[in-house]
Formats: sequence, structure tokens, C-alpha cells
Amino acid sequence: MESESFYGVTLSEKDPIAQFDVPDIPEEYVVHSHKLIIKQISLGSEAKTGEFNVVQAETNVNDDGEKKTVKIPIAVLKVGETRSLRPNVEFPNGSVTFKLVQGTGPVYVCGKAEMNFGEFDDGHMYEEYSDDEEDSDGDFDEDAVPQTNGKSKITKK
Amino acid sequence: MESESFYGVTLSEKDPIAQFDVPDIPEEYVVHSHKLIIKQISLGSEAKTGEFNVVQAETNVNDDGEKKTVKIPIAVLKVGETRSLRPNVEFPNGSVTFKLVQGTGPVYVCGKAEMNFGEFDDGHMYEEYSDDEEDSDGDFDEDAVPQTNGKSKITKK
Amino acid sequence: MESESFYGVTLSEKDPIAQFDVPDIPEEYVVHSHKLIIKQISLGSEAKTGEFNVVQAETNVNDDGEKKTVKIPIAVLKVGETRSLRPNVEFPNGSVTFKLVQGTGPVYVCGKAEMNFGEFDDGHMYEEYSDDEEDSDGDFDEDAVPQTNGKSKITKK
Amino acid sequence: MESESFYGVTLSEKDPIAQFDVPDIPEEYVVHSHKLIIKQISLGSEAKTGEFNVVQAETNVNDDGEKKTVKIPIAVLKVGETRSLRPNVEFPNGSVTFKLVQGTGPVYVCGKAEMNFGEFDDGHMYEEYSDDEEDSDGDFDEDAVPQTNGKSKITKK
Amino acid sequence: MESESFYGVTLSEKDPIAQFDVPDIPEEYVVHSHKLIIKQISLGSEAKTGEFNVVQAETNVNDDGEKKTVKIPIAVLKVGETRSLRPNVEFPNGSVTFKLVQGTGPVYVCGKAEMNFGEFDDGHMYEEYSDDEEDSDGDFDEDAVPQTNGKSKITKK
Repeated sequence: MESESFYGVTLSEKDPIAQFDVPDIPEEYVVHSHKLIIKQISLGSEAKTGEFNVVQAETNVNDDGEKKTVKIPIAVLKVGETRSLRPNVEFPNGSVTFKLVQGTGPVYVCGKAEMNFGEFDDGHMYEEYSDDEEDSDGDFDEDAVPQTNGKSKITKK
Repeated sequence: MESESFYGVTLSEKDPIAQFDVPDIPEEYVVHSHKLIIKQISLGSEAKTGEFNVVQAETNVNDDGEKKTVKIPIAVLKVGETRSLRPNVEFPNGSVTFKLVQGTGPVYVCGKAEMNFGEFDDGHMYEEYSDDEEDSDGDFDEDAVPQTNGKSKITKK
Repeated sequence: MESESFYGVTLSEKDPIAQFDVPDIPEEYVVHSHKLIIKQISLGSEAKTGEFNVVQAETNVNDDGEKKTVKIPIAVLKVGETRSLRPNVEFPNGSVTFKLVQGTGPVYVCGKAEMNFGEFDDGHMYEEYSDDEEDSDGDFDEDAVPQTNGKSKITKK
Repeated sequence: MESESFYGVTLSEKDPIAQFDVPDIPEEYVVHSHKLIIKQISLGSEAKTGEFNVVQAETNVNDDGEKKTVKIPIAVLKVGETRSLRPNVEFPNGSVTFKLVQGTGPVYVCGKAEMNFGEFDDGHMYEEYSDDEEDSDGDFDEDAVPQTNGKSKITKK
Repeated sequence: MESESFYGVTLSEKDPIAQFDVPDIPEEYVVHSHKLIIKQISLGSEAKTGEFNVVQAETNVNDDGEKKTVKIPIAVLKVGETRSLRPNVEFPNGSVTFKLVQGTGPVYVCGKAEMNFGEFDDGHMYEEYSDDEEDSDGDFDEDAVPQTNGKSKITKK
């Protein structure tokens, strides 16, 4: 079952940080995947001319078997040059923090949050084909996320 | 079964508000999901030079178990700088109001409305696997939408 | 079965209108869905400096149970300001007319036409689950398209 | 089974044409669909200031039952105005030729080629529902592609 | 099973190269597909005015049955002209190297890495329909990737 929600936050000098986390869910459900997609980042009409506004994302990625924190600007905005961007970047399976590291805003961050849950039920459908695959899938899923800058490695448990 | 429709409204000084709601449907059908996607927002050729035109979206999101209203600009337009945007934002499972909070327009809002309905029939397909899942799915679906700015929580009913 | 085709038309002073319709098909096939997606609208290199070129779309939508015609500009182009747009708007299940209502062009309209047909065969797959659903689906499909500017209503037949 | 590949060609005064065709495949496979998607077209840093660079696509479409050749510019680029475009146009089920009809380049054309093949295997899955549908599907598929500028027609064979 | 990860690297004069490879995985798993999608490439606020920053991609494609290396710029950036691009190009089934071939940066490359693995389990589902297809699929998959600039050929093994 998929659940979606609009995501919208305003970053400014007073309120420069927004955090997005995986939600708590009841024990009998499984969150299959959880993702935040940033669709548009734009400057408000009251933003200062000539000032850069830079939004940085901070998130965890899996690089060659170890978790690593990546910090990277996803929007460099400036009135008269770049008022609006559609980065369309996705943050799957984990938390992400957005920070206005330069400028005073306001900066509008819009996107979509998606959650896929209830995998236990889906599992029933496959039980007749292979009884043991559910466990190994579960294990593997946790650290299957590869990546960034170099050769990632999925370690056998 | 999925149904789609073009969505197009013009906002102006005289007609600055457009509302989009979940439609009424006959009792024997279930609306599985309902979504409005805003593809493009653009200024008309007669828009005033130097004037900001700001379109604000107002919608409900679920933040840490409670419904909250979010108001956020999704388009900051200005002749000579930004005549057109493609926000691509999505408003799932609920109503949304667009308001021209600054400027005189005309502003063209184009998009797509999607509706997924008729889940009772789909349910028949799964009945042989797990008889009781349909109920819990129904319950859970109503408040499963997480999000915005902080840790959301899905409460167990 | 899905069929796709490139769509490309040139609008100009001499040829300002392009119409797109649902195709005729043989009786034994069912068109499940039919859609035109406009990917890019751009001015030719010979377009006049300072002239607005406006492309208007005219199509039918279902508003609160009644069919209504919507006319809305989907591209406001001007050499030196906006030479090209990617509206990405979709016109599902019906015809649409594009008209160069301002300017002399040339304006290139590119996109994709999608058709999904052959539903009778798909129907066979479900017959063992619910014999009567095919009819009600058929009925419902015709006027299920909601939308635009107000609360739409799907009437029970 | 789906196969994807990066597509990248450089057009210039010396090498102004790039052609993309359906590949030869062994007899026992069926190509279900074959598509080229153009994601980005951009001018090199050495492109001349003030010069238009126009990339034209030439492909076949099916208009009202007859094959027709369409020639249409998909990129009008100019240093200082439009260095880069993301047309996102798709050329399904056939060949397409890109030609630099104006300008000296270099122009970088990037995209993705997709092929779906091996339909004979998929056919096995449906055999128990309807033995004869495979043939008629095959027939119909060949000329089912509708479109462009007027009412297309799918003729009964 | 699909696994996704955010991808983010910064290219600069000191660190002008980033490489992305297919990860090592345990023997009992099969990587069905592996893909890197580049969503956004942008200049940092400290990039030099008037300097071109060019990011080149180098990857393997299959052209008419032979592997060939393609080198093509996917971003030509310049402060005051093009600060940011969304190429949306995809690099499926193989490694890719990004190189800042012109300029001093910083250039932020953001995207998504997708991996589809565990095909052995999926295979169980089809075993009752055709026992031998798994082998031929495996064979064929390895060199099925077509393309670029001319007619590609899939050779029968």
C-alpha cells in the first residue's frame, strides 16, 4: 500500500533548518520504502537582490559497505539570476536535513513524501513459491543501499 | 481503475481563488487515491512588467499524527524574470486551494487530476490469500499520510 | 497493449490550428485510454523579436457531473525571454485543439500520443473472480473523469 | 525483459547527422517495443555567440492509417539565450534521424534507448486464458500507432 | 527487490573526477539492473564569473554488437548564463566516470542510484510455465544493450 503526502517547508534566517525522518509506525506493519522527493525550491518575492541563498542537504549514503554522511548544496539561488529550481532529487530510506547555509530567504521547499508499507501482507502471496525467501530478503534489505563516489560494496552477512 | 483529466484554471484580480476537492462518488465505489498534479504555472502575455505574481497553495498534511494546514507559495512569477514554472507538485488524497496572494495576473495553472477507484473489485483478487487484511487496510489508509517539518507518527488504532 | 507515437506539429500564421482526436478503431477492440502529452513547445529561429506567441489548448473536462469546455493558454513565448517551454500537460480520453491565438510563429509543438487498447482480452483474466464487474466498469468509465475549479461529482447511474 | 542504454551523440558542421534504428535481433526473440528518449540537447562551450543551432528530427508517424514522415525542429539553441534544452521527446517503434540544419555546433544530444524484447515467453503466461489472442495482437501491433495533426485511423485488417 | 540511494558528489579543481561502478554483491544474489540517474548539476555560489565549467561523462555503450566508449559533455555551465541544469540522463548496467574537463568548480552533481537484485527468487514464479527460459535470459541479458549513432545489432550466441 502506498501513501503519499505533499511536503512544504519555508526556510529563512529565523528558521533555517528542516528535518525529515522516517515516521514511527505500529509494530505489525513493515515500512517497505520511505522516500522524500524535492520537486521545487524557490525564492520568495521579498528575497534580497544580489544575495545568494544556498540550501544544503545532509543525508546518509552507503559507500563501499559503510554508512557515510553526505553534505551537498541542492539549490544555489539568486534574485535576477536563478529564482527557482526543480532539483527533483530523492532521499530514500532515511532521514535528511535541509539547511539554509547562505542567505536570508525566504526559500520555499516543495515536494512529495512517499511511504510504502504493509509488506507482511504482500508476503502471503509468494509463500507458495518459496517459503524461505522472506527472511533473506528482510536481512538483505537493510544494508543494500550502495553508492557515491567510488565503488560501493554489499557485504554478505 | 484509473481516471485522469486535464486540469486548467486562470487566476486573476477578479477571480483569485481556485479550489480542488475530492469528488462525491456513489456508495458502492471506493476512491483508492485522488491526486492533483500541478504541471505548469505561467503568466499571460498581458501581465504587468515588474509586478510579482505569487500563487499560494493551502492544503492539509499529517504531521506527527495530527492534521495541520500548510500554506506555501508554489509560484513566484515576474515578467522579464520568471514567466513560467513547472512546479510538478502533487496534492494527494485531499483538497487544495490555490490563491493569487500577490499580483493581478492573469496566471494560468495547468495540471492533471488522477483518481483511482473501484478497490472493492480488486479486493476480490486477494481474498483467497488473506481474508482479514481488507479491513485493516481500510482503517490504516485514512491516517497513514505522514509528514512535513519534523518527525511524523502513524498512530496505531 | 500500449501503443505510442511521436507527435509533432508546426503552428504558424498560415496554419494556426492543430486538432488531435481519438482514432477510429475496429469494433472488436476497446480503447482503454487515449492520451496526448505535450512535451515541448518552442519558437523557430525565424520568430520575430518582441512578439508574443501564445498557444491555447481547448479541451473538454468534467466539472461536477457536466462536460465543460476549457480554453487555456499552455505556452506564452517571446524571443529573448522565453523561447521554449516544457509544459508536460496531458490530455487524456478525448480530443484537444491547439490554436496560435497570438503571434505569427513558427511554433513547434512536440509530444507523445499513447493509446491503450484491447481491454476485452484483459477482461478474460478477471472473469473467474467477478462475472458482473465488467459491465459496471464500462458504464462507470464514461463519466468518471472529475474536475476543475470547484467540486466535481460522479453521478450514480 | 527490458534493456536500456545511454545514448550520446555530438553533432557538428563536419558530422551533422545521427541516425537511430531498430537493431537486428536473432529470430527467436521478439522486440516488443523499442524507444529512443532525448533527454538533453546542449551547445558546447566553443559554440559561436549569436549563431542559431537548430536540431531537426525526422521520423515516421501513422496519420489516419498511412505512414507519413514528420520533420520538426526539436531544439533551437543560441549562446546567451538558450544553451541547453531538455525536450524529453520520445521516438517509439522506429528509426529517427537527427540533423543539425542550422549552425555549426558542437551540439550534444543525450538520451536513453530502451528495448523490450522476449515477448514469446510472456505469451506463455496467457495461453490458458485465450489461445488465439496472440496472433491478433501481433497483427494489430504493426499498424496501431496513431497520430499527428488530424484524426488518425486504425484500419481493420 | 529495488534499492535506491541518493547520489551526491562535488567536482572541483582539486577533485575533478568521480567514478560510479556496479557494486560487488554476494554470490547468491543476482543484480538484475543497476542504474545511475543524474538529476541536477549546478555551480556553487563561489564559482568564477565568466568561466565555463564542463562536466564530461564517459561510459560504455553497445554499438552494433561491439562495446564502445562514449565521451560526451553532459553539462556546460557558466555563471550569469547557466548556473544549473537538470540533465536527467541515465547510465544503466555499467560504470560511468564524471570529469570536470573545463573550469574550476565547485560543481555539485546530484542524482539517484537504483539497483534491482534478487532475480533468482523471481525466477521461481515462472518455472511452471517454461523451465528453460531462465538460462537463455541470463545469456541474452549480458549483451542486449543496443545503441548510439548507427544501427546496433544484437548477436545470436
